Amino acid sequence: MGHPPILISEVGPRDGLQSIASIMPTRAKIAWIAAEAAAGVREIEVGSFVPAKLLPQLADTAEVVRFARTLPGLTVAALVPNLRGAEAAVEAGAHKITLPLSVSETHSLRNLRRNHAEVLAEARSIAEFLATLPKERRPRFEGSLSTVFGCTLEGPISDAQIARLSEALMAAGCDELGLADTTGYADPAAVRHIIRLVRGAVGTAAVSGIHLHNTRGLGLANALAALEEGITTFDSSLGGLGGCPFAPGASGNIVTEDLCFMLAAMGFETGIDLAALLTVRKILSEALPDEALYGFTPLAGLPLGFRGAGRHGSTA
Amino acid sequence: MGHPPILISEVGPRDGLQSIASIMPTRAKIAWIAAEAAAGVREIEVGSFVPAKLLPQLADTAEVVRFARTLPGLTVAALVPNLRGAEAAVEAGAHKITLPLSVSETHSLRNLRRNHAEVLAEARSIAEFLATLPKERRPRFEGSLSTVFGCTLEGPISDAQIARLSEALMAAGCDELGLADTTGYADPAAVRHIIRLVRGAVGTAAVSGIHLHNTRGLGLANALAALEEGITTFDSSLGGLGGCPFAPGASGNIVTEDLCFMLAAMGFETGIDLAALLTVRKILSEALPDEALYGFTPLAGLPLGFRGAGRHGSTA
Repeated sequence: MGHPPILISEVGPRDGLQSIASIMPTRAKIAWIAAEAAAGVREIEVGSFVPAKLLPQLADTAEVVRFARTLPGLTVAALVPNLRGAEAAVEAGAHKITLPLSVSETHSLRNLRRNHAEVLAEARSIAEFLATLPKERRPRFEGSLSTVFGCTLEGPISDAQIARLSEALMAAGCDELGLADTTGYADPAAVRHIIRLVRGAVGTAAVSGIHLHNTRGLGLANALAALEEGITTFDSSLGGLGGCPFAPGASGNIVTEDLCFMLAAMGFETGIDLAALLTVRKILSEALPDEALYGFTPLAGLPLGFRGAGRHGSTA
Repeated sequence: MGHPPILISEVGPRDGLQSIASIMPTRAKIAWIAAEAAAGVREIEVGSFVPAKLLPQLADTAEVVRFARTLPGLTVAALVPNLRGAEAAVEAGAHKITLPLSVSETHSLRNLRRNHAEVLAEARSIAEFLATLPKERRPRFEGSLSTVFGCTLEGPISDAQIARLSEALMAAGCDELGLADTTGYADPAAVRHIIRLVRGAVGTAAVSGIHLHNTRGLGLANALAALEEGITTFDSSLGGLGGCPFAPGASGNIVTEDLCFMLAAMGFETGIDLAALLTVRKILSEALPDEALYGFTPLAGLPLGFRGAGRHGSTA
């Protein structure tokens, strides 16, 4: 249909699990990741290399990375907060690592206990370390601009600051930048604006991914705006895991099932078998019986005669 | 900002209430309608002129219309299935009446027990009746193309049939056409396609409104696509009333609160005071304690420093 292929990057095993109280057993994580890969998901962020005492839910990240690497065709991603995390990720064999830099310095200090200069220095150290590795062991290095659509502590962040930090992260040695609506503040106009702003600062090719939350119900509308701006990688979480709309400030990821339905209905190719994907949800609900799962497509089912490429399968 | 003003048409008192088992007392309906009008909602579909034995939830529609007419600046809309309903609507004083025509003839026969020719004949009778009225008592007459994005019984409906029925409804004497995703089958590409198709058949000015459901989570993404196509009237339901995601085939309307937040964040003017709107939800939850309410903005609250016109308040 002329659409570019879209990469769904499942982040539930990292962002979903780190946001809930329950700890998922390693074998359930492995079953989940294997089932999603089997359904055609080509990238999964399987964990975060942070100290286990900070995020006990993700203490088994190295083990999960080592397993996920055995799945053919899967890009195994992991979050790293610093050089030490990057070293651990490389040792475990991650294909992609993501270092978050909060464009709100207040948020950066509160969450990572580092100011911007310190995070940028960490990015440089990671890039220098990666440069010492043979190419086949070197993961792709993404810098993630978190709170880029606004911060719960600072409110909106200025365009100038966002552009400056984007340039600085690329100068520090990142291969690409991701845009993260950490706080669920984005709207479709802001999505278009920030994509153009950051691409204007660092080039179109350096910005392919976006990480959206559904905090105020706008998640898929924001995804549509990003899609129309040419973004091709979308983070999402199966069952919207990690969201809790009954708590103020709730901030679940957009729902993988609904996102994949939207893309398939519009005629975009993700490589994902939607019917197979919908069955993976059962693994989550059985392993995490106390956690709410979100999304509407799993409950409503697919439309009658749905073929996955849409009779109206062409966008404007 | 250069955006056209957007009209939110609250349909909860009709589409929401007809879809739930609870019967809302007339005084609660009146309190709800008055509170939404006070928050700046300028059009409310307050009921349906169908036999009370079919929809006991809406048996008080005439009384509710008569009350709603006393609210300054409010357009009072009602659904009518036939000439008899239109006569009752005019007698009560409705400003706008909507006759649904299901573009799926199977659905039309199943739901209204009428084939297309019979519904079109009814449209002609209504138009002839309206023509006999003095201008100040004559309501605006909308024909609503229901199941236009696909039917749970027939699947997709052909473009040719949709175009033919659009022309026939206008020829029968409708003032305008609305597009209704009765079944929750729409996706953003289909929204664009159908808007262009129907406008191509009957002219751009004759198609200003869309009625979307959130059955598969795509409601606001579909609204965004419609907005970008130049649609200026959006049906929605406070709290997404009428939706039930825990039942297969659930089909709640898009949520007024989240829709208004999206529009305000993007810099569109609706005339609605978002903070005031969010308080109206309490009337619903108290009057219908057994019904689930949906929407995320009411739970997450407004972003820090939110001014309602968006720092990024310009669309592409």
